[in-house]
Amino acid sequence: MTDFEWTRQQFDLPEGMIYLNGNSLGPMPRASVPAMTSFLNDEWRTELIKGWNTKNWFMQTNTLGDRVGRLVGAAEGTTVVGDTLSIKVFQAVAAGMKMVPDRRVILSDNGNFPTDLYMVEGLMKLRDAGYTLRTPDPEDVMDAITEEVGVVMLTEVDYRTGRRHDMKAVIEKAHALGAVVVWDLAHSAGAVPVDVGGFDTDFAIGCTYKYLNGGPGAPAFIYVAPRLLDTVEPFLSGWYGHEAPFAFDTDYRPMPGKIERMRIGTPSIASFALLSVALDIWDKADMDEVHAKSIELSELFIREVEARCPGLKLVSPRDPAARGSHVSFAFEQGYAAMQALIADNVIGDFRAPDVMRFGITPLFVNEADIIDAVDKLEQILEEERYKDAQFQKRALVT
Amino acid sequence: MTDFEWTRQQFDLPEGMIYLNGNSLGPMPRASVPAMTSFLNDEWRTELIKGWNTKNWFMQTNTLGDRVGRLVGAAEGTTVVGDTLSIKVFQAVAAGMKMVPDRRVILSDNGNFPTDLYMVEGLMKLRDAGYTLRTPDPEDVMDAITEEVGVVMLTEVDYRTGRRHDMKAVIEKAHALGAVVVWDLAHSAGAVPVDVGGFDTDFAIGCTYKYLNGGPGAPAFIYVAPRLLDTVEPFLSGWYGHEAPFAFDTDYRPMPGKIERMRIGTPSIASFALLSVALDIWDKADMDEVHAKSIELSELFIREVEARCPGLKLVSPRDPAARGSHVSFAFEQGYAAMQALIADNVIGDFRAPDVMRFGITPLFVNEADIIDAVDKLEQILEEERYKDAQFQKRALVT
Repeated sequence: MTDFEWTRQQFDLPEGMIYLNGNSLGPMPRASVPAMTSFLNDEWRTELIKGWNTKNWFMQTNTLGDRVGRLVGAAEGTTVVGDTLSIKVFQAVAAGMKMVPDRRVILSDNGNFPTDLYMVEGLMKLRDAGYTLRTPDPEDVMDAITEEVGVVMLTEVDYRTGRRHDMKAVIEKAHALGAVVVWDLAHSAGAVPVDVGGFDTDFAIGCTYKYLNGGPGAPAFIYVAPRLLDTVEPFLSGWYGHEAPFAFDTDYRPMPGKIERMRIGTPSIASFALLSVALDIWDKADMDEVHAKSIELSELFIREVEARCPGLKLVSPRDPAARGSHVSFAFEQGYAAMQALIADNVIGDFRAPDVMRFGITPLFVNEADIIDAVDKLEQILEEERYKDAQFQKRALVT
Repeated sequence: MTDFEWTRQQFDLPEGMIYLNGNSLGPMPRASVPAMTSFLNDEWRTELIKGWNTKNWFMQTNTLGDRVGRLVGAAEGTTVVGDTLSIKVFQAVAAGMKMVPDRRVILSDNGNFPTDLYMVEGLMKLRDAGYTLRTPDPEDVMDAITEEVGVVMLTEVDYRTGRRHDMKAVIEKAHALGAVVVWDLAHSAGAVPVDVGGFDTDFAIGCTYKYLNGGPGAPAFIYVAPRLLDTVEPFLSGWYGHEAPFAFDTDYRPMPGKIERMRIGTPSIASFALLSVALDIWDKADMDEVHAKSIELSELFIREVEARCPGLKLVSPRDPAARGSHVSFAFEQGYAAMQALIADNVIGDFRAPDVMRFGITPLFVNEADIIDAVDKLEQILEEERYKDAQFQKRALVT
């Protein structure tokens, strides 16, 4: 049984803050400072170059990858962490393209997180071989999977609305028609139970700075189906994925049969220290229980907002099974209203053009937080506080 | 004047250790623990998502890039940090290829650091457009620059021997014949004065975990010539390089005229905190003075080793102007001899097949260290301690 009182105690949120943005950047675990201090003093300072062996730095891509993989249904030895999600998109789609060399259509949707589309755009330009990226509306994706499509690349949970794709159905149809599937789990890992192994996706990628609480810019991850590990081509073929990285051969030979081949360059070991203690909390959580609790809290939140904030319109799916772990409302003055709410120490975020987005993260958010947050939101709307000039000014990063 | 007593005090090396491996992984600055603790407590913990604005996380790629850039002769606004060196190789060479679309030869040398060659190999496979990578011996590179060559990609300082290429001459010849030039400065930045702006290279890349002391897996950097900033194509086109990253447009538009376009995905902000304090030390160092001191110490080291360790053969250039800031000797039992030396708390490293490599890093190594290191090396060789079985066993990471 996941002890949500215990998990809540593992985080050290600022006094009085209600943090409904763990879907964007997770909060700091209390163990982060001692863990990082120990990494610095007992590993880097003391071991120096020897740390690659004595502290197992070299294989943390894999040990951490396995721990992240467990949360998305990946078997041991199929997931590594490192790089950024943008790079992992490129790596997975590039590999996928070459698995279906005669097809020239990449299918995504227009609700995908833009960087996924941008990376594919760059990849297509680089290949310069007549590729097309199709981006229908998300609800039309299933119909758009045809025998023309080489790679289907989708984000399971929509970053704005929380709408979920049906991973299993997409994979089945794509495979039946000979396409390769890449799932971006940025808003899924730690949010909803997914089963990359059971659904037999070809690739899955994601990040660890949202629900997994690895810190700003924490490493990305990539999963490759076991059946592909011996043949998948790592076009971003760096020394870290080489069969014999310390032979310093001039020719690249990918590590045979192992997920190591998807490693690229030397990863930030400091960022691994932060991810490791964040995963210590996840190691004691059951993903199904976290999801059940997320649904409880989300339903409460939607009920309260709809009862008390009539100007806000739910844009997330009403069916909890059809959404991830964040809830979004459209409101014309959404940007300013969110700034006013943040000034009141309730932290959500805003996504253009008019979406107020709230992450529901049971590891550290409870019922009382939800009620308090809606109390403050209701007040701001009643007092029309979003009309204050101070809340209209756009920040660089929204 | 660089105060080398002061710079030495900024590092907290283990008691009794002589660290001649700062060319591989720099030691930890004393300020790293307080800086990281402050980042964790006062930034991530307290500011959470707001830190992207309030703590300027979003632009640290550039502020840190400028500080690294200063050490290699880059003007402000031409360098960003992030990702790994392998990724930056790919990014620079891919962009270079497209600048000379009719040429199909990439020129490097067989002494380049393998990952550079591996990344180009992957890039060529991905493009699948008839590219060839030529890797002559380093001394034949000048002659191999012809009108067939599209991109010249070289590492200035050889990772094994320390031999330097003549950057200026290579760039002049390559440009005269219409080729694009990418310099890998992994073993140059913080080691020798280079002038990427004055020499007018097209691209330069490097890492910050060696001489710059940013910690294991610290971010890489990329420099782009100002004349290219408006046209260079960032094929690894992630949201961090977009003209309007928070507009969430579905089409990629590179940041016009700015180095931002070479940013890709969300970088590790924790790793930036470590790099920043490491650069605080470099901010007070003069690169020419550091180099002059490196030559003094290297000449002393070579003189002493040659006088007292006759089995070792210098494989670095004897002319100090022709080498970087590490010195290497060939010795048949080099692996075991290095392990014996490490057991005696003198840390260098080994590169296959027989190279004992010693980094000469004046920020924290002085004359007494050099003499002590040679004393211990001489003893090991005299006593043939490298014959002990314990020193023969190969570690995973060498």
